[in-house]
Parts: sequence; C-alpha cells; structure tokens
Amino acid sequence: MLFYFVVYIKLISIYFCIKLETITGMKEIIKYREQLEQLIDEGQEIKILSLISKFHPDDIADLIDALEEEQKSKLFRLLDVETASDVIMAIGDISREFILEDISREKLTEIVEDMPSDDAADLIADLTEEQAQEILSHIDQEKSEDVQKLLEYPEDSAGGIMQTELVSVKQDSTVKEAVELIRSHSEQVEDLHNVFVINADLQLVGILPLRKLLLAGENTPISEIMDKSTVYATADMDQEEVARIVKKYNIISLPVVDEDMCIVGRIMVDDIIDVIEEEDSEDIFRMAGISEEEDVVYSGRTLKVCMTRLPWLIFNFFGTLISGYFLWIYQSKLHDLLILLSFVPVICAMSGNVGVQSSSIVVRGLATGKVDFLNLKKTVMKEFIIGIIIGLVCGLIGSLICFVWHHSMVFGVVVFLAMFIAIAFGSLLGVLVPLFFKKMKIDPAVASGALISTGNDLVAINSYFLLAAIFMKVFFKA
Amino acid sequence: MLFYFVVYIKLISIYFCIKLETITGMKEIIKYREQLEQLIDEGQEIKILSLISKFHPDDIADLIDALEEEQKSKLFRLLDVETASDVIMAIGDISREFILEDISREKLTEIVEDMPSDDAADLIADLTEEQAQEILSHIDQEKSEDVQKLLEYPEDSAGGIMQTELVSVKQDSTVKEAVELIRSHSEQVEDLHNVFVINADLQLVGILPLRKLLLAGENTPISEIMDKSTVYATADMDQEEVARIVKKYNIISLPVVDEDMCIVGRIMVDDIIDVIEEEDSEDIFRMAGISEEEDVVYSGRTLKVCMTRLPWLIFNFFGTLISGYFLWIYQSKLHDLLILLSFVPVICAMSGNVGVQSSSIVVRGLATGKVDFLNLKKTVMKEFIIGIIIGLVCGLIGSLICFVWHHSMVFGVVVFLAMFIAIAFGSLLGVLVPLFFKKMKIDPAVASGALISTGNDLVAINSYFLLAAIFMKVFFKA
Repeated sequence: MLFYFVVYIKLISIYFCIKLETITGMKEIIKYREQLEQLIDEGQEIKILSLISKFHPDDIADLIDALEEEQKSKLFRLLDVETASDVIMAIGDISREFILEDISREKLTEIVEDMPSDDAADLIADLTEEQAQEILSHIDQEKSEDVQKLLEYPEDSAGGIMQTELVSVKQDSTVKEAVELIRSHSEQVEDLHNVFVINADLQLVGILPLRKLLLAGENTPISEIMDKSTVYATADMDQEEVARIVKKYNIISLPVVDEDMCIVGRIMVDDIIDVIEEEDSEDIFRMAGISEEEDVVYSGRTLKVCMTRLPWLIFNFFGTLISGYFLWIYQSKLHDLLILLSFVPVICAMSGNVGVQSSSIVVRGLATGKVDFLNLKKTVMKEFIIGIIIGLVCGLIGSLICFVWHHSMVFGVVVFLAMFIAIAFGSLLGVLVPLFFKKMKIDPAVASGALISTGNDLVAINSYFLLAAIFMKVFFKA
Repeated sequence: MLFYFVVYIKLISIYFCIKLETITGMKEIIKYREQLEQLIDEGQEIKILSLISKFHPDDIADLIDALEEEQKSKLFRLLDVETASDVIMAIGDISREFILEDISREKLTEIVEDMPSDDAADLIADLTEEQAQEILSHIDQEKSEDVQKLLEYPEDSAGGIMQTELVSVKQDSTVKEAVELIRSHSEQVEDLHNVFVINADLQLVGILPLRKLLLAGENTPISEIMDKSTVYATADMDQEEVARIVKKYNIISLPVVDEDMCIVGRIMVDDIIDVIEEEDSEDIFRMAGISEEEDVVYSGRTLKVCMTRLPWLIFNFFGTLISGYFLWIYQSKLHDLLILLSFVPVICAMSGNVGVQSSSIVVRGLATGKVDFLNLKKTVMKEFIIGIIIGLVCGLIGSLICFVWHHSMVFGVVVFLAMFIAIAFGSLLGVLVPLFFKKMKIDPAVASGALISTGNDLVAINSYFLLAAIFMKVFFKA
C-alpha cells in the first residue's frame, strides 16, 4: 500500500515538476541555472562573473536558491561585497544557512559593513552568539552600536524593522544646507526619498520630500517648504500597527521616534510589504490550524513543522471524539433509525462550512480594518441573516432529498429543522468566536477553521438527534 | 427559538460594540464623531471646518464612514476640492455611493480634475454611463483622453492600476533641463520620487532617482547618472505579476510600457499594497468557499453575499451527502457494530484538517513564491512525510483510546490503520489538488477548504468501514 503511495506521488510530482516550469515563468532562470552549474563544476570563475554581471541581485538570489548545496557557496564566494550584501538578504533561509556556515569572517564583516543597519541586525540575529560577537567587534564602531541597539527591540516592533540610516535637517536651515547634508550622508543612506525635519530640541516637526527640495531656491528656509502634519511610529509600536499607518497614509519612508519625539530610525515601504505578507501568511496558517511563522513552515525542518501542526490536531481530535461519542450514544438508543445516519455528514459539514465562511470574513475584516467596532453590530446581524437564508435554502433541499429518498415526511421535517438550526447557529458561532478572541487579545485567526468546525459539529449532531428523538416520540410512539 | 437567538446576538453584539472601542484604538475618531454629528445637525459649518481642518484626508474619510447616511453628504459638501478628491477615494464603497448620488455635476467635475488619472478612472468607472459621459465631456480634454484610455484596460492589469502622470526626460538632456521639466509638471505630478529616462525613439532606457538629480551638477548629462538596468511592467501584465515585480525589486514607482517600450504610465508602491491586500483577501475567501471580491463581501448587499456563498455550499452539500450514503449503507450492513460509529467523526475530521493545513501551505506558498517548481518535489514529499508522521501519532492515540474505551484490540487496529491511511492520503490530496488547479490555470485557492474536506471525508469513511469489514471477516467470522 505504502509502496504504491510513494510511486504514485513520485510520478505525480515529476509530472508537475515538468509542467509547472511554463506556469511560473521562471524559464529564464532555469536556462541560466544549467549553464551556471556547469561553469561552477568546471571552476570557470571569469565566465561565471561575466554571466551573472548582467543580473539584478534579486535574480542572482533566485539562482543561488535553485543551485545544489555546495554550489551555492561557490557562487556566492565570487560576488563582490556590494552585490553579496544585497544577495544574502534576498536568498532563502536554507541557502543562507549554507552560505553562512562556509563564509570567512573577513568577508562577512565586509558584507555587514555594506548593509543598511536593519538588514545587518537581521543577519547578525541569524548567527551564533560567538560569530555575532566577532562580527560586531570588527565592524565600524558606530554601525556596531546602531546594530546592537536595533537588536534590543522586539523582532515584530517598529524598532525591530527600522533602519538607523536617515537624514534629518534642522527646520531653520536652508535648502542649500540640506542638500549638503544629504551629500555628506549619501554613502550610508542609499534609498532617500525624503528628509525629516527637526527643531532645536531634535524633535520631529516635519517631513520634506526631495521633490520640494529640488524645486526650491537655495536659500529658502526648510520650515517654509516642509510638510508640517507628520505621521510617525513609536519604536515600541507593533509592526502590524506600523503597516496600518503606512497603508492608510501612503507613506514611502516613515520616521520612528522615541518617547521624547526624537527620531531614532525610519521604516521603508518595502519592509512594510514584507510585514503585510508575513502577517497575511500567519493569518492564513492560523485559520488552517498551523501556529507558526512562514519561515518555519517553508523550512526543511519536517519534524518541527509536524510539531507546530500537531497541537491543534490533537485538540481537535478530542473535540470530534466527543461528537463521535454522541453519535454512538444516540444511534445506540435510536437503533431502529439507521436512516438518520445518512444526513449526519451533510448537516455537520454545512454547519461547519458556513461557520468557516463567516469566521474568515470576520478574521480578514479585522485584519484589513473592514470590520471594526463602527460596523460591528451590522456585521454580526448580516452574518446571522445570511446564516438564516442559507439555512432555509439548504434545509429545504435537504428535506426534499430526504422525502424523495426515504419517503418520510417526518424525517424531512427533522432534517429541515436540524439543518436550519445547525447552519444559523454555525454562522453565528463563526462571527462571534473570532470577535471574542479579539476582545480577549488573542489573534482572532486562531478561532477559525478547526475550532469552529468542531464546535459546530457538536451543535449539529446534538440538535439533529434531539429533534429526531422528539419527533419520533410525538409522531410514532405517542 | 429564533426569538432567543435574536435576543442573544443583540446582547452579545452590544457587549462587543462597547468593548471593541478600546481595542481598535479609534477612540479619537469616536470622540470627534459625536461632536461632529451635533455640529452637522445644528448646521454650524464654520465650526465643522475648523474642527476637521487639522485632520488628514484619510482621517476625514474614516469619520465620514462612521457618520449616518445623510450626514455623510452634508460633511462632504463642505470640503474644498483638493481635500474632497483625496477623501472620496479613501472612504468606503457605501459612503461613496451616498455621496455620488447627492453631489452636483460641477463639484464632481472639479474633484475629478484634481485627481491623479488612475483614481479618476476608478471613480468614473463607479458612475452611471450617463454621469460618466457628462463628467468626461466637462473635464480638461487631455485628462479626459487619458482617463478614457485607462478605462479601456482590464481592471486587474497593469494598465488598470497605473496613472499617466509622470515625468520622462531624454537621456541626452542635462540635470538642469530635467529639473525644469519636473518644475513644469509639478502641478499634475505630485508624488514624484524618480524620473524615467527615454531615448530618441521615446523608449524607456533608464530610471533616475531624485536623490541623484539633487546631488549632481547642473550640466551633468542624464545618461551619466541614471540607473540603466530598468525593471518595468507591460500594460497588459496581470496586477499580481506587477505586485511580484515591485516586491522583488523593492520599487517605489514602476514604469509601464507598451509593446514598443514607450512609457504609457507608472504604478506607485501604495497601489501595489492595495493589490497585495486584495489578492490575499481573495485567497482567504476562496479557501473558505466564498468566490467573491472584498468589496462585495463587506458591502451591505446581504442577498448578493448569500448568492456568492451558496454555490460552494450546495456543491459541498451533495459531496457530503454521498459520505452520508456510504455511512448509512455500511452501518446497515454492519449493524451489530454500532461501536464503529464512535470514531467516524474523528477520522473524517483529522483527515480533513490535515488536508486543509497542507493545502493552505501550498496555496499560500504559490501566492508568495515560497513554493515554485524549483522546490515542488521537496514540498510534495515533505507534506507526505508530515502526513505519515501525523497519521502515526493520531492513529496511535486513536487506537489507544479505542482499546481503553471499547476493550477491543481488533477495533484498535482498525482505528489505527484507518486513521493512518485517511490522514496520509488527506495530506497528499491537500498538496496535489491545489497544484493540479494551478496547472489547469484555475486559482489554487479554490481547491482548499470545503473541496479538500469533502474529498477526504469520502476516502476516510470508505477506508474505515472497508478495513472494519475485512477485519471482522478475518477475526470473527472466519
């Protein structure tokens, strides 16, 4: 049996492997990969460099991810420091592990020196304690201090994702002075789209897009052309909240301030895109009962992934075992009514599915801000009404089928009522459980999927058999 | 019964309504909303304007969304054109509908004139044919032509989300000329972070960040300081593909070209954030069996939402009805083995849950690019191994419980085997179905949730009862 399974997936995965190429549109990389693999095996360094010199660092990263283990390091070693520092943050975790194991301390120091502080902190956080200390003691002291400060912030706070490279100008300086300041910082601060404006106490008072700086006269005071209404994040703010601010106000680079309103860093919009993707993945996984971060889920650590999926499954295991217990008890008591069994799966499934639909809408709505306390009452009411309508429709279809199939009017009514109650209640549970979790400050995404289905199963089985028992008593035994 | 339900959700929703205020941190808006409602009722226009003058347009939009129907228009009518054009794109669909019904043609024309072309096209697409024609004939002719061109692109293509406002300079011009060009466009092109560089044939050849323009000498030729390796989108590219490019290369403003490599528009990173959120919501909803866009799901149209949720449910209805049929058939034949029933829900649920976990991982992986053909084989194998491990663990627990509960060794073995097969197969189905859908160019998210559970239920019930039948025959009747 197992053997057939293995052969079966082998065949299917090979089939997909061939076919997917044309789908993902990565043909180009495939083409170069083969050529590159050969060149690496032959050790043709100059040809390799001339081949990859026309690639964007992010494409080189894709290539390295596609190579075999030893080849990853071989290719990486050939890159110049600037490219290497871009590439190492763009490759996958598995490739990075291989490369970091193999890299010399000198090269790694150079790479870290060349990185913006946020990337440097992320990379150093991936190293062993010993490696990290060594690198930190060898890089430029100012940078080392910056990075160590960044490492103290929680990973998912504004401080954890910000970089310290930025340009801030005094509000009483002139355009000319500001341009000079930008010029003197131009090596460290690469992606500059605006400068932050501060007062004499070094507090953030405004923001100045480069466009305004470019069009203003040399001697114009900064305070005259800056935008005064400033949106900012505090260093301890949760990254989800930061993402909400960046989305709402369409910000390219957001200043981060400490409790005295002094600027301690800036967050770029592309880091926020990563945050949004990460949070969305987390929600999707939690809804499916996987309580882990993206990195782990897609890592090679099979056993670790198992461990993150098992807890929910075991919880669910005992939940559905209770349903099984009730099913068994009821059926033992109503053993002349085997016919009832034929509708158990459909009633349970419908109630569970409607519940999952409702909870997905609420969980996603809470995440995107489409559901908030301003429209909460409406949302709950709407989902309940939808539950009633779907319950009526499915109940009618169910009772009709029951009538045609088993020729029993009474059964038809039981199926109708049970289906209606299970679906209406299921929809309600699907809305209320995530809201309750949100209130208890638990991620509402945890509430979806398995939990909702299990709860709804219990309600569905019990209302179905209780209704059946009552109807049997009234119509046949009374 | 229904009465109690209604009272119950009323109470609970009121409870949540009070409690959630403190969670969402929108206290500020609440405070102003009450004050504003009173001022609007009293018609105190000057006081209203002085109150909202300190707000960011996006905050005014939140406030309008929170107001009652007639008050939305009353407040909107007071806004100056510039604020109004920012606000109308930031408010919810329901608020926009109310405002557009009420607004004068003159005001709307002014608002559209003030908007960037992509927003203008989106707004005009929301109007009736008649209204749209009227507005288009009254706005500036160049803008009208731009907007009409944009309206011809599919909504979810690069053309559908780009704006035509941009600055492109010839590669042989100087920095001084480029700055003059930016100055002459400064009224139309507000968010400018880089200029696109074109050759004599008007083709895109490079990109130039404002920072470089700011730091270069007046007479430096553009071709000397521009970035040559240019990433771009074509106008017919799908928005998901555009989002992937923007994410991969960390782009702030992406040029869009036609088939001759001439620039036709640009896409800003904040529009891409909206695309990412939209696509993620779509995936989450599809996984839950809701085949609709975010706008509809969170709209007030209850019946329409029902219609988008019913098809999947009805499909699922008949799927699970087949499970019910098998359950009934098997149980009628093995009616002395009611004991078997107690494990039906847990085996079905486990197989379904593991399947949903696996499919979520694959669907999300395909969306974020963490699963592609380069690691496809590994992913399928990994999920299968995880299925086997989870199957072993759950099977062991199940058979142990079965032994303790029902004191039957043979049953224990049946439960173990059935659970193992159902979970291993469930996990495999969870990986392969989305991949198959991807190959068939159907959104893999459609494959998740209900479909996987239904398929897995069928497999689980059949393997469980068949195994039971075989074991019974071997151990008791043979």
